[in-house]
Amino acid sequence: MEKVRVVEIKEDILSRNNERAKEVKDELARRGVYYLNVMASPGSGKTTLLVELINALKGKYRIGVIEADIDGDVDAGSISEKTGVSCLQMHTAGACHITYQMSWEALESLGTDGLDLVILENVGNLVCPAEFDTGATANLVLLSVPEGDDKPLKYPLMFSVADMVAITKKDVLPAFDFSFEAAERNVRKRNPDCPLFLVSAKTGEGVPALASYLEEKIAEYRERR
Amino acid sequence: MEKVRVVEIKEDILSRNNERAKEVKDELARRGVYYLNVMASPGSGKTTLLVELINALKGKYRIGVIEADIDGDVDAGSISEKTGVSCLQMHTAGACHITYQMSWEALESLGTDGLDLVILENVGNLVCPAEFDTGATANLVLLSVPEGDDKPLKYPLMFSVADMVAITKKDVLPAFDFSFEAAERNVRKRNPDCPLFLVSAKTGEGVPALASYLEEKIAEYRERR
Repeated sequence: MEKVRVVEIKEDILSRNNERAKEVKDELARRGVYYLNVMASPGSGKTTLLVELINALKGKYRIGVIEADIDGDVDAGSISEKTGVSCLQMHTAGACHITYQMSWEALESLGTDGLDLVILENVGNLVCPAEFDTGATANLVLLSVPEGDDKPLKYPLMFSVADMVAITKKDVLPAFDFSFEAAERNVRKRNPDCPLFLVSAKTGEGVPALASYLEEKIAEYRERR
Repeated sequence: MEKVRVVEIKEDILSRNNERAKEVKDELARRGVYYLNVMASPGSGKTTLLVELINALKGKYRIGVIEADIDGDVDAGSISEKTGVSCLQMHTAGACHITYQMSWEALESLGTDGLDLVILENVGNLVCPAEFDTGATANLVLLSVPEGDDKPLKYPLMFSVADMVAITKKDVLPAFDFSFEAAERNVRKRNPDCPLFLVSAKTGEGVPALASYLEEKIAEYRERR
């Protein structure tokens, strides 16, 4: 009985969250702000890739960043310093995910006036953040080469909610038993049409292709308004 | 107000879980079973290290393994095949952690009769599993070299609840900007006396030291009974 109660509470929280997240999405569409939610395991290279991606895009768009961490502020400092864009550090006080409400409060603190693109770096976690819609326009999910090509089979929800997947740390491929084809096959089992990119933030390889794809998506988003 | 309610429910669930987990711990002590809970990020090398560790220890102890995954059964098959020990695959039905109850049910399904050591491979997640006591005798937390030496700062609770930490994938150190000393310093900020091991399941380096430490701990556990 106890188990059932917990599950029901969780379903209530999730369905209410995901309903309210639509309002965040609609408000951002009205404001013309494309909101990209980046999710991945700890240490998969989110911050490093974001620095490269922002530097590739900042000539075309006014960008803001929200860095969500349980603790610490290493990432916000590093992104601001390396890209010059404004970056808000958000602490989740132990929470393993970002709700619509935390997402909205962070957007309001950052201020979206004059911004074209806001990037949210979610908590490093391949499970919980996938359950909570943040109101983002799109979800970018990263999988790093060292983690292994089987992860989409073991963390299915994360790869189902992805609108695009980037395989990161391409530069270390020779040191690991990782097949891009197997990773692609495993992602496609959960998400048949999901575009995949193979990138290295260290060498820059693959970053222009991902940046171009985002530009296309932002252009389509603006046309739809 | 809504937020407060959610937090209270969570605290209730956690405190009840952690109270009941003590009963699991006591029952295992009565049975003389050392229960090791292994926690880490996705793709940090839990399964590969466990195979090496089990092969180093199976001559001395009768070992059972519980593999917890959200989905898939790749790991249980791989561990059974490579070590010959009995292994139970447990699916968490989407859950990001193992409660005392899931842990207890898995122990009863596996059967602890005649076992000296049971190893639980928890869900790949550096956040939530740290909150839920599984009733384990000890927690082994892994941090892989590709994840970065700053992770103990960003996921403080996980490194606080660790009884031992193993830095995995030592063989790829030259390809990454990772300092063992920095990782050690960062772990010690949260957990001053925690023993650290630097291992490579691929080359076997460091595995004997970790296995010997576990043997010591198991001997102490038996003496205390």
